[in-house]
Amino acid sequence: MRARGAVLEHHAVVVRDGRILEVLPATLAAQRYACTVLIRRPAHLLMPGMVNADTHAATSLFRGVAAGSTPPDERIVGAEFARDGILVAIAEMLRAGITCFADRGYFPHEAARAAADQGMRIVIGMPVTETAGPSKSAADYLTEGLNVRDEYRGHPSISTVFAPHRVSTLSDAALARTAALADELDAGIVLDLHESAAEIDGSIARHGARPLERLWNLGLLTPALRAVHMAHATARDIELARRCGISLTLCPQSSLKRGFGLPAIGALAASGIRLSVGSGGGADQTQDVWGEMKLLALVSQAAGESRAGESQAAWDSLAIATCGGAAALGLEADVGALEPGQWADLCCVDLAGPATQPMGNPVTQLVFGGGRECVSDVWVAGRQLLSSAEFTRLDWPAVAARANEWASRFNMGQYNMGQFNMGEGRR
Amino acid sequence: MRARGAVLEHHAVVVRDGRILEVLPATLAAQRYACTVLIRRPAHLLMPGMVNADTHAATSLFRGVAAGSTPPDERIVGAEFARDGILVAIAEMLRAGITCFADRGYFPHEAARAAADQGMRIVIGMPVTETAGPSKSAADYLTEGLNVRDEYRGHPSISTVFAPHRVSTLSDAALARTAALADELDAGIVLDLHESAAEIDGSIARHGARPLERLWNLGLLTPALRAVHMAHATARDIELARRCGISLTLCPQSSLKRGFGLPAIGALAASGIRLSVGSGGGADQTQDVWGEMKLLALVSQAAGESRAGESQAAWDSLAIATCGGAAALGLEADVGALEPGQWADLCCVDLAGPATQPMGNPVTQLVFGGGRECVSDVWVAGRQLLSSAEFTRLDWPAVAARANEWASRFNMGQYNMGQFNMGEGRR
Repeated sequence: MRARGAVLEHHAVVVRDGRILEVLPATLAAQRYACTVLIRRPAHLLMPGMVNADTHAATSLFRGVAAGSTPPDERIVGAEFARDGILVAIAEMLRAGITCFADRGYFPHEAARAAADQGMRIVIGMPVTETAGPSKSAADYLTEGLNVRDEYRGHPSISTVFAPHRVSTLSDAALARTAALADELDAGIVLDLHESAAEIDGSIARHGARPLERLWNLGLLTPALRAVHMAHATARDIELARRCGISLTLCPQSSLKRGFGLPAIGALAASGIRLSVGSGGGADQTQDVWGEMKLLALVSQAAGESRAGESQAAWDSLAIATCGGAAALGLEADVGALEPGQWADLCCVDLAGPATQPMGNPVTQLVFGGGRECVSDVWVAGRQLLSSAEFTRLDWPAVAARANEWASRFNMGQYNMGQFNMGEGRR
Repeated sequence: MRARGAVLEHHAVVVRDGRILEVLPATLAAQRYACTVLIRRPAHLLMPGMVNADTHAATSLFRGVAAGSTPPDERIVGAEFARDGILVAIAEMLRAGITCFADRGYFPHEAARAAADQGMRIVIGMPVTETAGPSKSAADYLTEGLNVRDEYRGHPSISTVFAPHRVSTLSDAALARTAALADELDAGIVLDLHESAAEIDGSIARHGARPLERLWNLGLLTPALRAVHMAHATARDIELARRCGISLTLCPQSSLKRGFGLPAIGALAASGIRLSVGSGGGADQTQDVWGEMKLLALVSQAAGESRAGESQAAWDSLAIATCGGAAALGLEADVGALEPGQWADLCCVDLAGPATQPMGNPVTQLVFGGGRECVSDVWVAGRQLLSSAEFTRLDWPAVAARANEWASRFNMGQYNMGQFNMGEGRR
């Protein structure tokens, strides 16, 4: 994914101890290597696993809440809920070729355990809040996040970042403390930013500054910061973001679905700011990074049809959804490209179906014609988690059964369906 | 699809002689009917087949043209090309639950034969042009279209409409003649309209009127007219279109991909104009009505997240993609709803997968979480064409092999890859 437009035909990827050893023509590979396991995929495209750079995985279970009802607060429902919801999201992501996700929720221990059990790569947001939960103080949340960070230090597929939630509800002091702590621990920070016009107006009213400017004043605008959404950005916002080296995670489907409008994808891409893509949050959470990638490519098309333009838009979006995501999560040395030394986080796509035949330009057809339904196989750190579209490890019937138990409980009113006060409504 | 929000659980659809006989609770159906064929789909949603209200099916084969090359003109390549391209499109559509499509191409005989052979429902555009083709005069195209109309008169799944292509290249006289002929024959008219700003500016420069106004002056704005695209519409355009009772086919992904921007979906939907959705044309043609439907729903979301709003947007988009399409094609008495007397054009969707579980609101989850990958079975006029995601009739390996032969010929330069002069560049 690093050399624009590079598509290697009839190649093999050699994996040892979970990492890519070599990428070379298949005929050469057959001569040079004696394989323990040889997997042939003759009508397929092999690419780096996709990266979902922002999700709230636990809330997958809120899909089960009947129309007309409001989901309860996830903090009230608890850790078991989080685990079961994250497993639904992991199933959906693996099936779609996503090998790595950045999650933000209130139960980081559960996220770490679920991802580790299933072999998924995860970046866990350590919640930073000033609002107490139903059985935890604001400080408890921070402590719990830091405990996860310590417990998984050096883990090959689990890392952590601070996740202040959300900027508009946090005091200047809390944000500045987070920046200092992140700097001290050499940790990243991820937060929602400029998602809606109301958020920006509120910040101007309360703090006399747009949220981005406020973060700059507080010293948070550094390359360690990743801002999610940025659906509303003036030319000045973009220039400030670029100059400070922050990275952005765009969630175009989430932004549309929540009625906030599309980010200025063309201007953001042209600015050189590091971009990644995520499924974002919102009611009825889905993990559709393919849809986000396609929408990015569609929206970034300049006026007038052009095959060259389409091909470039497709490549750029694919890069954002793979190596861009890896870089945004600070994992570019480990994943995001089919290069020797990288972890073998791989997504294999079957291009033999009617949406992608006949084959002309694989990347254009992958992005505009393909979709998650074409994903056949997935490996994370060399371990195969999906094989010919079947889970090798995840027990989907069991996960689905637990998910539907939650749906029954929600719809029988076992949880208070009202809002837990978070200062600003439901995420 | 006609009663907003109606979802019937544990129901059966009884089909006889290709038409729906009754829709009733499954337990009652078991008591009342002795079936020749009983198909159980316990974790599924059954809905009217989707309608792709605009496509240029033959051009599916241009996907096979390598990046950097320009596809040849379809009229030069010929009838065999059209047949093979249409078969690729039919495969893609059936796999995605589309049971009916409106096609515009230069080989209406091939379109009719391919659709009839495969059992698909089709509305065929009879090309109206003033430009001669490589071996046909402009009059030949019209004669050929009218011959197809005569040949298939009374056919249960094939109908025809006039398809002037395109408004900007046609004289006032040709458009007025088409209107008179359509009126005389009681036929519909379909044409691209207000796809791009350039088209509108050109019409003002040449004719002193926006394309819509020009058609009004020429007497074409009647309920028999279906206008495709309408990506650029002022409030006055919308009011004129509404008052004249024309219908619209929106192709939002095509509009984005070709760089023309999104239609004003909210205003169009609010106007009460009959809406349908299509995959449109363009390089690397795809038949992704699910994607169009989802994009419509996303874009029509009003500001601010709301489960009720999402649910309504999902329902409206689903209606546009099913009964809306049927109405736009003049087929509302025959297809588009699960009602006694309608042809059994059905799409069955498997909702048991990780993108649509747990189940809360089936319609919201179908539109926002589902996709063509969830389609398990398809029937047209009661004949099953897809069964558990496998074609029952279409020979995909043979279709794909022919498609790839075309790709080889294109890429070996067997056709002049330049533009055949159509007055306005490639469609």
